[in-house]
Amino acid sequence: MSTNATPGEVPEDLTKRVTSFVDHQVIPVEHEIETDRELLARLRGAARAAGVFAPSAPTEYGGLGLSMREQADVLEESGRSLLGPLVMNCAAPDEGNMTLLEHVATPAQRERYLRPLAAGDARSAFAMTEPAPGAGSDPGTLTTRAVRDGGDWLIDGRKWFITGADGAAFFIVMAGTGADAATMFLVDAGTPGLSVGRHIPTIDAGFTGGHCEVVFDRCRVPSSAVLGEVDRGFANAQVRLGPARLTHCMRWLGVARRAHEIMLGYVVKRELFGSRLADLGLAQHLIADNEIDIAASRSLIRTTAATLDERGRANHETSIAKTFVSEAVGRIVDRSVQLCGGQGVSHDLPLARFLAEVRPFRIYDGASEVHRWSVARRAVRRYEATRTGGTTHG
Amino acid sequence: MSTNATPGEVPEDLTKRVTSFVDHQVIPVEHEIETDRELLARLRGAARAAGVFAPSAPTEYGGLGLSMREQADVLEESGRSLLGPLVMNCAAPDEGNMTLLEHVATPAQRERYLRPLAAGDARSAFAMTEPAPGAGSDPGTLTTRAVRDGGDWLIDGRKWFITGADGAAFFIVMAGTGADAATMFLVDAGTPGLSVGRHIPTIDAGFTGGHCEVVFDRCRVPSSAVLGEVDRGFANAQVRLGPARLTHCMRWLGVARRAHEIMLGYVVKRELFGSRLADLGLAQHLIADNEIDIAASRSLIRTTAATLDERGRANHETSIAKTFVSEAVGRIVDRSVQLCGGQGVSHDLPLARFLAEVRPFRIYDGASEVHRWSVARRAVRRYEATRTGGTTHG
Amino acid sequence: MSTNATPGEVPEDLTKRVTSFVDHQVIPVEHEIETDRELLARLRGAARAAGVFAPSAPTEYGGLGLSMREQADVLEESGRSLLGPLVMNCAAPDEGNMTLLEHVATPAQRERYLRPLAAGDARSAFAMTEPAPGAGSDPGTLTTRAVRDGGDWLIDGRKWFITGADGAAFFIVMAGTGADAATMFLVDAGTPGLSVGRHIPTIDAGFTGGHCEVVFDRCRVPSSAVLGEVDRGFANAQVRLGPARLTHCMRWLGVARRAHEIMLGYVVKRELFGSRLADLGLAQHLIADNEIDIAASRSLIRTTAATLDERGRANHETSIAKTFVSEAVGRIVDRSVQLCGGQGVSHDLPLARFLAEVRPFRIYDGASEVHRWSVARRAVRRYEATRTGGTTHG
Amino acid sequence: MSTNATPGEVPEDLTKRVTSFVDHQVIPVEHEIETDRELLARLRGAARAAGVFAPSAPTEYGGLGLSMREQADVLEESGRSLLGPLVMNCAAPDEGNMTLLEHVATPAQRERYLRPLAAGDARSAFAMTEPAPGAGSDPGTLTTRAVRDGGDWLIDGRKWFITGADGAAFFIVMAGTGADAATMFLVDAGTPGLSVGRHIPTIDAGFTGGHCEVVFDRCRVPSSAVLGEVDRGFANAQVRLGPARLTHCMRWLGVARRAHEIMLGYVVKRELFGSRLADLGLAQHLIADNEIDIAASRSLIRTTAATLDERGRANHETSIAKTFVSEAVGRIVDRSVQLCGGQGVSHDLPLARFLAEVRPFRIYDGASEVHRWSVARRAVRRYEATRTGGTTHG
Repeated sequence: MSTNATPGEVPEDLTKRVTSFVDHQVIPVEHEIETDRELLARLRGAARAAGVFAPSAPTEYGGLGLSMREQADVLEESGRSLLGPLVMNCAAPDEGNMTLLEHVATPAQRERYLRPLAAGDARSAFAMTEPAPGAGSDPGTLTTRAVRDGGDWLIDGRKWFITGADGAAFFIVMAGTGADAATMFLVDAGTPGLSVGRHIPTIDAGFTGGHCEVVFDRCRVPSSAVLGEVDRGFANAQVRLGPARLTHCMRWLGVARRAHEIMLGYVVKRELFGSRLADLGLAQHLIADNEIDIAASRSLIRTTAATLDERGRANHETSIAKTFVSEAVGRIVDRSVQLCGGQGVSHDLPLARFLAEVRPFRIYDGASEVHRWSVARRAVRRYEATRTGGTTHG
Repeated sequence: MSTNATPGEVPEDLTKRVTSFVDHQVIPVEHEIETDRELLARLRGAARAAGVFAPSAPTEYGGLGLSMREQADVLEESGRSLLGPLVMNCAAPDEGNMTLLEHVATPAQRERYLRPLAAGDARSAFAMTEPAPGAGSDPGTLTTRAVRDGGDWLIDGRKWFITGADGAAFFIVMAGTGADAATMFLVDAGTPGLSVGRHIPTIDAGFTGGHCEVVFDRCRVPSSAVLGEVDRGFANAQVRLGPARLTHCMRWLGVARRAHEIMLGYVVKRELFGSRLADLGLAQHLIADNEIDIAASRSLIRTTAATLDERGRANHETSIAKTFVSEAVGRIVDRSVQLCGGQGVSHDLPLARFLAEVRPFRIYDGASEVHRWSVARRAVRRYEATRTGGTTHG
Repeated sequence: MSTNATPGEVPEDLTKRVTSFVDHQVIPVEHEIETDRELLARLRGAARAAGVFAPSAPTEYGGLGLSMREQADVLEESGRSLLGPLVMNCAAPDEGNMTLLEHVATPAQRERYLRPLAAGDARSAFAMTEPAPGAGSDPGTLTTRAVRDGGDWLIDGRKWFITGADGAAFFIVMAGTGADAATMFLVDAGTPGLSVGRHIPTIDAGFTGGHCEVVFDRCRVPSSAVLGEVDRGFANAQVRLGPARLTHCMRWLGVARRAHEIMLGYVVKRELFGSRLADLGLAQHLIADNEIDIAASRSLIRTTAATLDERGRANHETSIAKTFVSEAVGRIVDRSVQLCGGQGVSHDLPLARFLAEVRPFRIYDGASEVHRWSVARRAVRRYEATRTGGTTHG
Repeated sequence: MSTNATPGEVPEDLTKRVTSFVDHQVIPVEHEIETDRELLARLRGAARAAGVFAPSAPTEYGGLGLSMREQADVLEESGRSLLGPLVMNCAAPDEGNMTLLEHVATPAQRERYLRPLAAGDARSAFAMTEPAPGAGSDPGTLTTRAVRDGGDWLIDGRKWFITGADGAAFFIVMAGTGADAATMFLVDAGTPGLSVGRHIPTIDAGFTGGHCEVVFDRCRVPSSAVLGEVDRGFANAQVRLGPARLTHCMRWLGVARRAHEIMLGYVVKRELFGSRLADLGLAQHLIADNEIDIAASRSLIRTTAATLDERGRANHETSIAKTFVSEAVGRIVDRSVQLCGGQGVSHDLPLARFLAEVRPFRIYDGASEVHRWSVARRAVRRYEATRTGGTTHG
């Protein structure tokens, strides 16, 4: 998505460098992340040294400026450790926020918000989702409002499941500014009226800064805080949502591959009924189904990434990819757990952790059912528009 | 399975009493179990008062002496709280050990081990599973050995995933005593040479006493510790394994029903796109699939329970039921999580916990793949034995 | 459902007699049905001689008067040949029409219509389904109308997918007689204004008399033709619809078991990679899944049949059973085809024929999607009615 | 795969031209193919005029010389009519045989066999599969043998499921010529000792020339009949098998898309419960699942085609694609049938025909289970070769 990147062939060297970096520098120490407070900083230094830091960020802000198609390979590799995307500064929500800022922010905003984000000096959050009856999967029900007050805006409302909120340097906030219109605002942490509440205790723990409740209580921001145009918040956010869905897929596919590799490492060693588990039919069809799900997910991600690079927007395609990949990733990790038996559900292997980490992916960023509903509606509309065979043609 | 019970119609009053007990006495306080140390004792008193205590135990030991068919209804109801089976003293592994002791133990052993178990005064463990390359799903590879030493036996070996080991008053230990023969022993906690090691950190937390590593190091027991006959351990254990598989199904189906109920409570309140979630097609097919899986699981459990009551043994049928129900329960809880969206994967609802609790059920007591392998082999053998249409006839 | 029958244990002798009859008298000649015009009559004679004729019909009309629970076993066995139910006079739609007439018809109507049906001297049809925009899965849109004309009724409308219409001696016709009310009429073949049109060319060919278009053009019938009460057609038809759904399940499960048996016969003989196909893991999990689907379907059918015997009506339960069993039967036949490879999709084995015969079962008598929609709505309503845990309790 | 083609971007004009040709020239008359004997010749003339004839054949033989990646789009479009590939001369088995001849044949063989094939003047067959206990999915058990006799070869053996055999001008025959070695031979129809037997009556009818039994009884061919090198038959055949698997996927995906389009045409018109079926949730999730399966299949086909263009061989990848796509195509057609209800299973729509046509695709060219077995074995071998994270990396 970077304007610096020419879509096309992926630099194979880079992908290999990422694989090697994750295999040799990240995975061996990933279990130390909770005890070694210096680890992240050290690893980020190593990532910079290896030339794999900030793959999605524009080159003028120090990133690698990769196209979506190029990110497909690199982010998948980064995802083979839960820690990889964080270390390489291509984790959600920062990675998606960089894309958004790159395309929608003013030069001044980019300097102030994008530069530290790309450098890994700050974290950010995207504050859109609200508790019922507010905007969850249905943005039309947004209850957070922003009203003009002199030259400023006053924001009021409640958000939740705001990933990375605890410790974020700034928030991109979606607030209603008209009957059916919304506007995005850049709000610095510490702004009076903005408070970050509890971490919602979810089964995943892989996102720095948690999934938090955030309250805006007469939170005053200047007019320069508007990101993009007033009343164009939903349209502008699309620049982020489609690509962010897809980069999620890339990273989670990395997790799934790691699970598959751990399982292969187990089944080639474990004996059952006098054979290696790897050679028993009862295991082989699960192994094969994993390979099939990995190949299909990867093809769909790469094809959709190329489409995004070409067209800039591909909501139908990213909905399809997100739905398929989130479910495939769940199946892959589940089969890997199953084949590792009792160890699969114990914390002696990381698979049980992966199982909890990937489950919410079928819900976050639009539940599978909501995406299916959108996909069906678009399919029907396209069919009606053409009344030809071209409906499903890509 | 109790010798006291006449298989037949289930006392409807009892089932209703259990439902009411779980709804009004257990569920309202279940979240306090980790903080209120007196809670379990109080609830067990209430269970006795309500006449729902120890449904599987023989009447002469103070239990309700229910047949398997009768237990099907009662244990399902008990399972609607993760705490229910523990409170009602029909949780694994004690419930299965009571069955085993009732059928295989000597009168003296019953008095010493079954009586306190039935009364809820002691807990127990069944020590069969071993770490690789020992006996997991393949009992032929048992590495724990018992050898005669004078009038005693000396047991040596390592076990793991021994449910309830921490705090168990005694262990039923499977140890090899011949080329292809094994023997069960009753070993008191505290016997020199028996040590309970770490709790294997698994994703489920619902079993009191954990899943532990247990080591036998020249652990000496008298000949009166033999449970059943010498060298007949595997055959005798069948008395336990088939029924224990099925009572697992009963309790887990209760968990699945509870998840379904919690989800229904959510979808009738949550609005999406201007309708109740409960009325949207995107939710309805998941709700219906839950109802179908619940009905099919329950029918299969009841039918198989009746077969066990009639025949005493039904390995093919319990393998089928365990495989189907463990997978159906997983699907039901997963759909319930999905329909509750972000809350489904948060600990604001108990669904996320249920998800972790039920996942190992597809692995414990024989992984689905191993049961499928047995089921296929038996189906083929039966076909060959008859060469008629009677293969799958029940 | 017969009033003569006492629900309870199934006479095992009868089931065995049916198995033997189908194995030794029907299956060996089933392929001759299209060339040997006397075959059916001969086989029906044999069925009478074997005491397996008309199992669903009341004893006073010459049938066996079996309860639903008893029919579960007998009709499953009959279904192991596509010809079995026809030979034994328990095929659709006659079997369901007998149930309806037994419960709703006047004594005179029973004598005139039920007696020859039970004796196998006449066939019948149930004319409810209409082409769009009429009543398919949605009875509220019934377009066939009956209006009083003197003491008579005049029926006008179009029906289609009327099973068995070609050659039926009489039709049970559902016609609108009020705003939301409908009435059933008994209309003799040959009545002026009633014409049977083309056989709709469907992929199944197992129903005698086809699935036809039927037109009513000022078709005059006397008031004695009313079956049940005027304006109570839908309510009265429920007596037929629930049980008929379930007897379909019984017969189709028989087809599925036959497919499974044919497949077992193939895999024990066929060698692949130096082993019997039956012993290869790649086959075993399909064999096991068939066994599981057969066991789950059978349990669900028997349990639901017992519920129908007890309560007389069980729409929720029969919807669930029909949905599950129709899909399970499809899976079982499909896996059987798959394991027989090229022969599975050739007409050298009957499996390819079975595949076509069972596919419409997921559509006829209410498509799976419509049943799921009803099941979900009922589940939600029950939940709201109780607000207790009793929702899914049976 | 053509040596003339430069892999890369697909000429969009060509794809559109094919879509238009199929929509306007083929689909409107496809139902006349069995009655109008001149139709095929006329349509082929139109295909030549439209510049869409023989897309896979090399340009020097009059074809379009498309790469695999380019064929992916064009063959998918051709497949939207069962007649399309035949009309455009890119149907199996000729299309695969052209690929094989192009790469393995001598110049003289190409002139004699490839030229008329590419021109559409002759049909061909590939004779490898044998009845049990011969070579089905397991080439190691080949029983057809060829032995030298003077300068000639004598071929003896039985083949079956030989697609297109009836009317083929020549056969490419795989025969054993050593312990583990086989050789391919070009055998003209009419050669003494070669006889084409019965058409095996399969559920699909879309292949001209049927699936036949073929017998070789001392069938004498000169040494110039050897295709490729002696004893290198299996290795040489790989040139055909991988690509042929994938072009099957392309054509069948076209069938699936056509089914999806017909279904969309139905659901936008049909009313149920007062709404268009297209707008009901019970239909939307099936529509969405079709869109997802189409997108995933297409991505996998295109990615695998590009890999074949790059590497020339990709057995692992084509096994994965064939397994996934054959199953996805089955699901898509099945859902389309389901949504069209009674009409879906009637021959008033072509869907029922499609259902029968696509079912064998999960068996032909290697059953899903055999491909899964190969995929698992390769996955394990690759893992063992690397012991790194690179196992599943593509």
